[in-house]
Amino acid sequence: MREIKLSIFGFGNVGRAVVRVLLEKGALFRERYGVEFKVVSVADTSGVVWLPEGIDPREALIIKENFGKLSSWTNDYEVYNFTPSEAVREIDSDIVVDVTNDKNAHTWHLAALKDGKAVVTSNKPPLAFHYAELMKEAEGRNLPYFFEATVMAGTPIITVLQDGLKGDTVERIEAVLNATTTFILSRMEAGLDFEEALREAQALGIAERDPSGDILGIDAGYKATILHCLAFHPLTFDRVKRRGIEEITPEDVRRAQGRGNTIRLVAEIEDGAVTVEPREVPRTNPLAVESHENTAVIRTDLLGELVITGAGAGLKETASGVVGDIIKASMKLRES
Amino acid sequence: MREIKLSIFGFGNVGRAVVRVLLEKGALFRERYGVEFKVVSVADTSGVVWLPEGIDPREALIIKENFGKLSSWTNDYEVYNFTPSEAVREIDSDIVVDVTNDKNAHTWHLAALKDGKAVVTSNKPPLAFHYAELMKEAEGRNLPYFFEATVMAGTPIITVLQDGLKGDTVERIEAVLNATTTFILSRMEAGLDFEEALREAQALGIAERDPSGDILGIDAGYKATILHCLAFHPLTFDRVKRRGIEEITPEDVRRAQGRGNTIRLVAEIEDGAVTVEPREVPRTNPLAVESHENTAVIRTDLLGELVITGAGAGLKETASGVVGDIIKASMKLRES
Repeated sequence: MREIKLSIFGFGNVGRAVVRVLLEKGALFRERYGVEFKVVSVADTSGVVWLPEGIDPREALIIKENFGKLSSWTNDYEVYNFTPSEAVREIDSDIVVDVTNDKNAHTWHLAALKDGKAVVTSNKPPLAFHYAELMKEAEGRNLPYFFEATVMAGTPIITVLQDGLKGDTVERIEAVLNATTTFILSRMEAGLDFEEALREAQALGIAERDPSGDILGIDAGYKATILHCLAFHPLTFDRVKRRGIEEITPEDVRRAQGRGNTIRLVAEIEDGAVTVEPREVPRTNPLAVESHENTAVIRTDLLGELVITGAGAGLKETASGVVGDIIKASMKLRES
Repeated sequence: MREIKLSIFGFGNVGRAVVRVLLEKGALFRERYGVEFKVVSVADTSGVVWLPEGIDPREALIIKENFGKLSSWTNDYEVYNFTPSEAVREIDSDIVVDVTNDKNAHTWHLAALKDGKAVVTSNKPPLAFHYAELMKEAEGRNLPYFFEATVMAGTPIITVLQDGLKGDTVERIEAVLNATTTFILSRMEAGLDFEEALREAQALGIAERDPSGDILGIDAGYKATILHCLAFHPLTFDRVKRRGIEEITPEDVRRAQGRGNTIRLVAEIEDGAVTVEPREVPRTNPLAVESHENTAVIRTDLLGELVITGAGAGLKETASGVVGDIIKASMKLRES
C-alpha cells in the first residue's frame, strides 16, 4: 500500500466534491489501485489548514459548510497565512491539487513541479496561457501534470486526445464546451429573451453573478485552447477568435428554429486556428446538445469522425475528472 | 531514436492496412514519438517471411496483392513454415502484432509474453476466453498487452475504460458493437427481407461468406465480453446470453418503425451479466446508429452518462487502433 499525500488548493464546491469522493470511495480505491490518500492540507482564500500527519477531511467539510471559511477551524489545527507559492514550498506533499480559479496559478504549478511534486488541476487559465512551459517542466522532470477536469468536466476528452489516438492525425474538432450558454439558449428557445434567460440561470446557480466568462465565450475559449494544444501544438488563449452569445436575439433563435436548427456556442479547432462563436446547427447534429451535456466531434485521418458526449459541468462530474487524475498521478508516481 | 522490431501475424486486409499506415506515417511517427519501426517478419497462412535486418514492407504488399500469398515471395527472402508459436520463439522482435482470426492465438500470445515480447492484437477470441490469464502474464512481466482494435475498431473505447474513468465505478454499458447487423437491419427497414439484405451485405463485402459470427451475435458477444472484463472483472464468452438477428422478420422491422423505433443488435453489460440481443430503440437514442458506426453508452456513479460513437469497422479505422497500440507499446517499452 502506497500512501499519497495530497495538498488541496481551493475548497469551494468542486474542492469539497473531490474530498467527498475521496472519503466515500477511499476503501474502493485502496482495494482497486493499492493507494491510500492522505490529505495533508486544504486551503481556501481565508487560509491554509495543514498537518503533516494528515487532517481530518470530514471535519474540514463540516467547518467549511458551517462557517464558510477554513480559518474558523482553530480548535484542532493551526491556520497558516501562506500564499499558494509559499504553501507549495512549505508543505510536504506528493500531489498538488488545484481546484481554484486562480488566474496566476501557473506560477505555483511551476513551483510545485520544480519541487518534485505532481500537479492535478481543474483550473483552466494556467493551461490556456502557459501550456508549453508547464508541459516542458513536467516532462523534463517526468512528473505527472494532469488536467482532465479542465475540459468537459470528467468526460475523458483529454485522455482520448492524449492516449486514444496516437496513430491518428487530428484534422478538426468541433465542440460545445460551455453548459451555461446552452442553458440560456435553450431557455430562449422556450420563449424567454436573453436577459430573462440569464437571470433564470443565475437564480438556479448555473450562471455566476458575473456571468461574462460564460456569456462572452471566455470559458469555452480557454477549453478550446487546451484542446488545440493537445490535438495540434501549443497555442495561447489570445489567439482565439471569439464571439459570445450576448447579442443573440429572440428573433435569431426563432429563425433558427424555423429552419429545424438550434443555436449553440460552438468551438471550432483546426491546426493553428481556434474560433468560438454562436452557430446554427441542425437539431439532429451531435452539436445540438441539451442541458449540462458537452460534446466534441473529432475528425481524424484514419478514424474519420469520433463523437464524445457527456457531462460538461456538475460537482460529482468535475470531481470524476480530478479524482481520476489523482489516481493516475499516484500510479505513475509509484512506478517511478 | 529507438528502433522497435515488429513481427506481424496476419496479412489480410487489416494487416496490410496496418503496414500501409506504418509506411505512410513513418516519418511523422519518428518526429512525433521518436520511434522507428522495423518490420522483421510478416506471416500469412502460407508462411512466414523473416529477415532479422528487416523486410521491405512495400514489397510484401506487392507480393501479397499480386500473388495472394506470401509464400510466392521467394526471390529475396526465405519463407519459413513456422507455426505461430514457433515464429514467436524464433523471431527476435519487440512487439508481436496479431491481426489474424486465429481462435487459439492465446497460446502464442502467452508464449510471446513469457519470452519478454509485447503483444498488440485486433483478434478477439484470445481476450474473450483468456482475459485473466493474459493480463496476469502481461502485468507480472510489466509488458504491454494492448487490444484497442478488438472493440469498435480504432474508436478508443478501450482507452476510455482503462484510463479515462479511474475514479468512477461503471454501472452499466449499452452498446451497438457489430456493424454488419446494423447494415442488414437498415436494409430491412428499406424493404428487403433478411435473406436479401444478407446477400447484399455479402456482395458488398460487409458480411463474410459464412456470416454466422455476425448474424448470431458471436462477434458482438466477444466484444461485449471484453468490455465486461474492463468495466467489471474477468468473465468468459460462454457466460454471454445471446440471441442473433436471424429470426427478425420484415414484420418486426415495420412494427418498430411504426412506433418511431429501430431494431439494433444491442449489447448490455452489467456486473456479472452480458446480454446480446436485437432490441427496439427509439430513433433519437444514441444506440440508433447507422452505417459502420458503433456506439457505447457508459453509465457511471460520478459522471452519469457518457456516449462514445465512432467507426466500428473499416480498414483504416481498424488500423488506427492497431497502430495506436503499437505506438503506445513502443513508448512503454522505451520507458522500462
